[in-house]
Amino acid sequence: MKFLVIGGDAAGMSAASRAKRNNPNLEVTVLEKTMDVSYSACGMPYNIADTSMDMDVLVVRKAQVFRQKQGIDLLTGHKALHLDPQKKEVQGQDIQGTPFSFLYDTLLIATGASPIIPDLPGMDLPGVLPLKSLEDGRKIKSYLAENTVKKALIVGMGYIGLEMCEALVERGVEVSMIRRSNDFIPWLDKDICDYVRQETVNKGVGLYFNQGLKKIEKKSMGLCIETDSMSFDADLVILALGVVPNSDMAEKAGLELGRNKEISVSRALESSHDHIYAAGDCADAFHVVTGQKTWIPLALRANRAGWAVADSVCGNRVELPGIAGTAVFKLFDLQVARTGLTVQEAVRSGFDAEQEVIKTRSRAHGQPGSTDIWVQIVGDKKTNRLLGLFMVGKEGVAHRINAPAVALSARMTVLDYIQSDLAYAPPFGPVWDPTLTAAIQLSKKLT
Amino acid sequence: MKFLVIGGDAAGMSAASRAKRNNPNLEVTVLEKTMDVSYSACGMPYNIADTSMDMDVLVVRKAQVFRQKQGIDLLTGHKALHLDPQKKEVQGQDIQGTPFSFLYDTLLIATGASPIIPDLPGMDLPGVLPLKSLEDGRKIKSYLAENTVKKALIVGMGYIGLEMCEALVERGVEVSMIRRSNDFIPWLDKDICDYVRQETVNKGVGLYFNQGLKKIEKKSMGLCIETDSMSFDADLVILALGVVPNSDMAEKAGLELGRNKEISVSRALESSHDHIYAAGDCADAFHVVTGQKTWIPLALRANRAGWAVADSVCGNRVELPGIAGTAVFKLFDLQVARTGLTVQEAVRSGFDAEQEVIKTRSRAHGQPGSTDIWVQIVGDKKTNRLLGLFMVGKEGVAHRINAPAVALSARMTVLDYIQSDLAYAPPFGPVWDPTLTAAIQLSKKLT
Repeated sequence: MKFLVIGGDAAGMSAASRAKRNNPNLEVTVLEKTMDVSYSACGMPYNIADTSMDMDVLVVRKAQVFRQKQGIDLLTGHKALHLDPQKKEVQGQDIQGTPFSFLYDTLLIATGASPIIPDLPGMDLPGVLPLKSLEDGRKIKSYLAENTVKKALIVGMGYIGLEMCEALVERGVEVSMIRRSNDFIPWLDKDICDYVRQETVNKGVGLYFNQGLKKIEKKSMGLCIETDSMSFDADLVILALGVVPNSDMAEKAGLELGRNKEISVSRALESSHDHIYAAGDCADAFHVVTGQKTWIPLALRANRAGWAVADSVCGNRVELPGIAGTAVFKLFDLQVARTGLTVQEAVRSGFDAEQEVIKTRSRAHGQPGSTDIWVQIVGDKKTNRLLGLFMVGKEGVAHRINAPAVALSARMTVLDYIQSDLAYAPPFGPVWDPTLTAAIQLSKKLT
Repeated sequence: MKFLVIGGDAAGMSAASRAKRNNPNLEVTVLEKTMDVSYSACGMPYNIADTSMDMDVLVVRKAQVFRQKQGIDLLTGHKALHLDPQKKEVQGQDIQGTPFSFLYDTLLIATGASPIIPDLPGMDLPGVLPLKSLEDGRKIKSYLAENTVKKALIVGMGYIGLEMCEALVERGVEVSMIRRSNDFIPWLDKDICDYVRQETVNKGVGLYFNQGLKKIEKKSMGLCIETDSMSFDADLVILALGVVPNSDMAEKAGLELGRNKEISVSRALESSHDHIYAAGDCADAFHVVTGQKTWIPLALRANRAGWAVADSVCGNRVELPGIAGTAVFKLFDLQVARTGLTVQEAVRSGFDAEQEVIKTRSRAHGQPGSTDIWVQIVGDKKTNRLLGLFMVGKEGVAHRINAPAVALSARMTVLDYIQSDLAYAPPFGPVWDPTLTAAIQLSKKLT
């Protein structure tokens, strides 16, 4: 049986490797449009921050290992362009321009997502760079090495934008960030958001809101960036406006897509067409809280979905319960984390949502080194279900978010969560974990 | 109605405060044998480590606040000695030797636990000190301030012993520890345990096993400690042999006790006698994994149980689901955490238990600063239930343990846990959280 995989990153290589391990007789072919496979994309900002590190330390497993040790027919520089579900055929072109075509018994589309590049003048100028692929990372790092970059402008304030902000500040670059809307981290409640914004500004970062990008021009020295109402000078522009799923080929082949053009899949990652799976950033998922479809492209889901497809392809059909949108990022001294739904998201999904915001301490009473921890928690008035939790602090946030994340998977009520037996030691937290204290406060509003 | 509380620490003061908040007309009296109430006992080793801090920063709320602001009749220096459940009366003696007696409508016994002091020669010598009450902490700190303490011997290797070991090493004291048995941390698997032991020894600590204490003698300079086969010189001896529940009075009154003489209570903290509750370190609990009675005296449970009693006393009967024995401690650079059952404990409770031990990394591939994380995970072959998880590492352990702790509360299977949507960012962990990787490996053994 021929298992064809389009895309050689998290979902694609996870699926290919596991399928081959499950069934060594399976013919597994992977088509990857770039020359890179299986790398830690999320590690790029930290790598860029560190001049001593080569970008290729982010490669988890080299292409020849997949080929020689695992027996996977891994074809890099092979871009799939056309899918014919009737003929079960994928056509494309390799990096030399030579056309290719492959027949499959089962296909996995794991084409990922692409950075949004606005259709505006100057997006192709040298020094105007997005960050998505490892090649993007290399370009930014080379540009920083080969040019005098004193000032950078980051367009967008999502995870990538904020992580690149920290990376550039660490390299001594003066960073400004612009955003079209007037909110900073839209899922954080105002007080917490203000705190994170102030901590960012305190690092010397300029944050400019209500600034839609208009154009970028080359000047004698560096770049000039114009928005609706301002203009910026910079030596480097990072385009961090989010991503779109790579689903053009799937769309043309008639596969069902969702609201953001992500490929619509079942809990077993099956697309609307027989014998075609989709996984990773190009595909949607069910949300464990709402039970509804959602598109939150993150790495763990991509890996997990790849494995599930591999098992299904090998005869052991696996359904995934779904995602909670759990995420964390580092922003200078802060850890910022979320799981589940905000009040606004919850209301949109039909919940009678209520929230509580508390500020507490990261360590026990009388313990030195304690810092603030903010917790924003959301529950449902009708059912008492825990719906979401958001946290910011200088320590103890990144892993603390996983306890409420598990509670969301288990569909716990807020009262159930309050009874969880969490760990306590003075250097690591108060007797009542901050998430428990928040849940206790919220529970008073839910009854 | 008269609500009488015996014991003014975590469980007792939590109950008294909340009962008074719930119902300001309630007559609430607290009898505390020492002069201290409401302090962070677990913070004492860290306070002792720091010469600049007063021991009293650990007091969370002062006695006069409870008296004046909260209207609680709080009597310190009042030791309860006799309980008559028929007459609903408690008799005792205050610190001046004056007898007292109180009638109650509802009684809470929150007498806590006492350090085990072996019946051996020399236990009352100056410089031979246990650590349980705030007064114990003050004595150790004064002793360190007033004497030249170059060498200390710690008898016992439990949480308190190990935390005191770190505290004394931080103060420049040469520390040796002895233990009667030949294991270090009995609930850790051999490889992990060896790693923790080696890290402790690397800090210059002498660890001596199979050393039952025989006697302590005063010498011209310092103390001489003799075990079955060795003798030690030390300026200070810390007795950290564990604790026993303070249940003598309850026992004499005929209340039902458990295997360790802890007071046996229902899920609503009711003792075997009407109108008498027990909570905190003197009472038992149900284990969320086994459903059976257990005695694991820890601070969060004491606080939670105090609150539950207060609600029940005020007419809103509350049952607590129970505990998972979740705990964490810091040992030099290490964080050591546990939740749930070991294989041995699980087998004793009737499970068909299997475990897996993995060593992974604390951060993502290619991310600098990564260190080892060890995970030991236990599941049931019959039902696939997650039964326990144990973790050691230099970062990311203390709060990471809370995710499996919630999973135990939710009675998740190992397969359910694997599907939890946990957070990922390169500075904080691998894509697959170490607890997920361990669960994946374990799941292969469970099927």
